Amino acid sequence: MNERHGTADPGPTTGEGGAGLVALAGLAAYTELAAFGLLASRSVDAPDLGTRQALATAAGRALHRQRGLLDLAAVHGVEPASVMAPFDGVLADFDARTTPGNWHEGLLKGVVGHGVAEDFCRLLAAGLAQDQVDALRSAVALDAEVPDASEVLTAAAAADAVLASRLGLWGRRVVGEALGLVPTLLTAHPELSALAARARAAVERDGGALPGDDGGLQSWFMARLTAEHTRRMDRMHLAA
Amino acid sequence: MNERHGTADPGPTTGEGGAGLVALAGLAAYTELAAFGLLASRSVDAPDLGTRQALATAAGRALHRQRGLLDLAAVHGVEPASVMAPFDGVLADFDARTTPGNWHEGLLKGVVGHGVAEDFCRLLAAGLAQDQVDALRSAVALDAEVPDASEVLTAAAAADAVLASRLGLWGRRVVGEALGLVPTLLTAHPELSALAARARAAVERDGGALPGDDGGLQSWFMARLTAEHTRRMDRMHLAA
Repeated sequence: MNERHGTADPGPTTGEGGAGLVALAGLAAYTELAAFGLLASRSVDAPDLGTRQALATAAGRALHRQRGLLDLAAVHGVEPASVMAPFDGVLADFDARTTPGNWHEGLLKGVVGHGVAEDFCRLLAAGLAQDQVDALRSAVALDAEVPDASEVLTAAAAADAVLASRLGLWGRRVVGEALGLVPTLLTAHPELSALAARARAAVERDGGALPGDDGGLQSWFMARLTAEHTRRMDRMHLAA
Repeated sequence: MNERHGTADPGPTTGEGGAGLVALAGLAAYTELAAFGLLASRSVDAPDLGTRQALATAAGRALHRQRGLLDLAAVHGVEPASVMAPFDGVLADFDARTTPGNWHEGLLKGVVGHGVAEDFCRLLAAGLAQDQVDALRSAVALDAEVPDASEVLTAAAAADAVLASRLGLWGRRVVGEALGLVPTLLTAHPELSALAARARAAVERDGGALPGDDGGLQSWFMARLTAEHTRRMDRMHLAA
């Protein structure tokens, strides 16, 4: 495990910052492609035409964000094929461990999995230089919500208390598996763990410490990703 | 069956032409949504990252064309939800009869099914007034190819003669089922059969008759859709 208690990081130079930006763009692009697949699959077997259209549109938006990330990497001289390649297969275990039991579970898997991935990328972006954050933000609206998919779940849960309670349990399982990817990613990708250390330093410098933040880098991320997950489930009126 | 031997059609008035345009936009939007689903599904279980990306991009393009069609219908005062609704479920039989045996068959189903749908819509568009054709053409590149999906099949067939021969047989089955939808659509949708009669009249007025064109409206469409299918299979070096 690549645990760091990084506070002494001098901040990005152009070189290492560029590597961090490209690695982050690659990870984000890969997870957007995964989100596209999860949303599109649930569009295909959606219960009605309106839902089918809404999820297709949400899938298209994921692809649009991915295009922005791939274009950003291309500006830094890295081809789309190469920028995502280091992350190819990284979600295979997550997928295998979270086979949905029904359509709603499949959709919640997409919402939770993509939500964690987006939160993780947003946190990592705090370790970039400001001009890189700006470039990333204009490539893809970092704080863009995908309301369609969560709205479908919010409505379904509101109409069926049993489903809502099952989805709460399912969300807990999915988020557990998703969070389990964080150590794997940080260990396997030195550019990401360097970026993660810089992100932590930057957030704490700006006074963004949480109670219990004296642990390692991984638990620092876990605390924030878990908090965001709780907020996301709350917004859907699902038990986190 | 709504067979017509229409040559005496006076051409579109604004009213009926508008209804024809909206019906055509609805059919085309619905089949683009179907193409999105077929391409996205084959992106999800693609054998490698490059193919996965190529098919996701192709699916995104189908969605982009669909957006143009829905926007065009909206200009004519018809909401996205209503413009596709008359065609909801029209592909269910086609889907049930063409369950692919493997990944390549699934992809060819998308290419052939979408190809026939696009050709049918393009033929129908000949029955619109010129300004409507222009509006449709600017909403969605009517003759845009989706090279990615066919290129994947062309390469796979070139590398495996047994696969190529099986895909040839499969394509014949898929196109048979797809062509079977034409009479169903013309019978169920008077705006489309009126447009079809005008399209035939317009094409024949422009000297576009084929040998054996003295049959009914449906066989007139069959002859043209079959010819286009043969060209499409030829381009992929598959037996039609």
